[in-house]
Amino acid sequence: MSRSINLAVIPGDGIGQEVVAQGLKVLRSVLPQDVKLETKEYDLGARRWHRTGETLPDSELAALKAHDAILLGAIGDPSVPSGILERGLLLKLRFAFDHYVNLRPSKLFPNQATPLAGRPDIDFVVVREGTEGPYTGNGGSLRTDTPAEVATEVSLNTAYGVERVVRDAYERADSRPRKKLTLVHKNNVLVHAGHLWKRIFDRVGQEYPEVSTDYLHVDAATIFFVTQPERFDVIVTDNLFGDILTDLAAAVTGGIGLAASANINPDRAFPSMFEPVHGSAPDIAGQGKADPTATILSVALLLRHLGFDAEAVRVEEAVAADLAERGGAPRTTDEIGDALVVRVAS
Amino acid sequence: MSRSINLAVIPGDGIGQEVVAQGLKVLRSVLPQDVKLETKEYDLGARRWHRTGETLPDSELAALKAHDAILLGAIGDPSVPSGILERGLLLKLRFAFDHYVNLRPSKLFPNQATPLAGRPDIDFVVVREGTEGPYTGNGGSLRTDTPAEVATEVSLNTAYGVERVVRDAYERADSRPRKKLTLVHKNNVLVHAGHLWKRIFDRVGQEYPEVSTDYLHVDAATIFFVTQPERFDVIVTDNLFGDILTDLAAAVTGGIGLAASANINPDRAFPSMFEPVHGSAPDIAGQGKADPTATILSVALLLRHLGFDAEAVRVEEAVAADLAERGGAPRTTDEIGDALVVRVAS
Ligand SMILES: CC(C)[C@H](C(=O)O)[C@@H](O)C(=O)O
Ligand SMILES: CC(C)[C@H](C(=O)O)[C@@H](O)C(=O)O
Repeated sequence: MSRSINLAVIPGDGIGQEVVAQGLKVLRSVLPQDVKLETKEYDLGARRWHRTGETLPDSELAALKAHDAILLGAIGDPSVPSGILERGLLLKLRFAFDHYVNLRPSKLFPNQATPLAGRPDIDFVVVREGTEGPYTGNGGSLRTDTPAEVATEVSLNTAYGVERVVRDAYERADSRPRKKLTLVHKNNVLVHAGHLWKRIFDRVGQEYPEVSTDYLHVDAATIFFVTQPERFDVIVTDNLFGDILTDLAAAVTGGIGLAASANINPDRAFPSMFEPVHGSAPDIAGQGKADPTATILSVALLLRHLGFDAEAVRVEEAVAADLAERGGAPRTTDEIGDALVVRVAS
Repeated sequence: MSRSINLAVIPGDGIGQEVVAQGLKVLRSVLPQDVKLETKEYDLGARRWHRTGETLPDSELAALKAHDAILLGAIGDPSVPSGILERGLLLKLRFAFDHYVNLRPSKLFPNQATPLAGRPDIDFVVVREGTEGPYTGNGGSLRTDTPAEVATEVSLNTAYGVERVVRDAYERADSRPRKKLTLVHKNNVLVHAGHLWKRIFDRVGQEYPEVSTDYLHVDAATIFFVTQPERFDVIVTDNLFGDILTDLAAAVTGGIGLAASANINPDRAFPSMFEPVHGSAPDIAGQGKADPTATILSVALLLRHLGFDAEAVRVEEAVAADLAERGGAPRTTDEIGDALVVRVAS
């Protein structure tokens, strides 16, 4: 039996190209010899938009759908008005491919700098809902750009959408040694959405008697992220709170250069998408300064999703060993990629 | 000419009573002899709700309106379903009295512990919008508690509401030595509300040529709160982002025990309300363990709002001196209040 991976690659903007190149290098060296890796690059992002006015044409969306998975670098450029590429490309992919589990692990690696005094032991994962909440694009503005303007943003939440992601989070918590799940929302103010989340969280929890549970308002959660991050194991939360908390999580675990993410469609009706949490960092693009580690750790999540568990572990162990040895020593994008290629191959 | 302050006091729930008592003690000792302080206590909060089912009757709202200002302890108790007191009392007051400037200063005092390594120099103020955004209570749920439930939360934003708070923030930035104002939103995703904020921020900024400006997405802002908090001077943001950021700000400046806030109606059509950022902390209520400093610093904001600038400074300097001398040494609620009474009197 021959095995193959048919991977779509969207380097995107800014440092996207550079970090994706390292991710692919590591992917190629870690895969078993008999696995055929086919990649197809898609030219999407700021350049494409400037050239053609397109963000994600239907034909490309259809072509992307045929792949086993998508590796994405970064999207966004100051030359494009804020929101066009984010909504028209990145979020369009997450919504069209029903990526309802946006998985974002946070771990403070040995020898990795953190802004927190006392170096707490941090190892948790955020399960961020990916297809609902304030991210649906619902809303609008009336009398735009006049003194009488009214603008709305509508957070849409469904029992269907909340239950499936909450269930996924319980499964993950149940499979981890500490078996602890924290729901983060703001149900003392956003009572409609918040109570929907809380009711489903409590009900599904009855099916997971071994998982201990906890609820925190999002404001209080940010406090614990800096004063007691070791208290978290698995966190489940909505699309916007997940966005905010995972940047903060990246910051306390040593920076956005290490934060990986997976946009997963657990039903496997669509390809899942793997991307670093960081943005396109136009200020350092093309200079070989970008840290490709977040992309390489996203490749580990991709491997695990495709069933290459041992290979995923090898990538993660390589990163841990590399950081333990080198810490924050300044290295080029290539040097970091090369070092990890050597480690995963050996 | 005789001067007087007619103050409404809402101790509320949990530690509210204890911390408000200390706030009043300090207020009494710092006020000039010729100022007559009249206080009236309002019994609102969990006990009242259990007894009568009321959160804030119209008659009490009307009575409160006649005061010069309101001092509030804390609202909320686990025995009351989440949202009832928050929406029916605390937010009702903020909305009814048009507290559109929710002012929350953050300062890392000398000798104060912080979870951040390297003790950055932190001294900024968040101007949180207080009457719009996702806090309006707009939204609802359909087919509640069934598998077909849909729940919405509508963020309402108006040019009227955004412009007045943005202008207030520019005024504050203009009067501070660093003259720097940062807008925090998420205009790459919440494009309708986000672009409204950004357009008004840019336009009003033209009237303040000396104020340097900056824009950050809320997720990126949380990163800078822990890696580079010294970059902030004045921050202006929406109701929900302000809620989240000010808890994080409290955490990095040594904890919620020191975070003061003012809910201000700058037009003075209604009484402004002063309250610590912290909650009712039912776990430590009645034990004399609560730190009243946040309430006492809120009293300083109250004094400044009523024109007692020199007295406000005296309270703030007393707190700074007290913390410099005592740091985090364990003291009772009373001991801290007493120490500050002595300092402001001398
Ligand atoms: C770029 C932006 C649309 C995106 C988000 O808000 O989800 C990013 O911040 C992220 O966290 O992946
Ligand atoms: C108690 C709650 C309604 C309130 C808020 O969300 O505004 C609190 O968190 C605050 O920050 O004052």
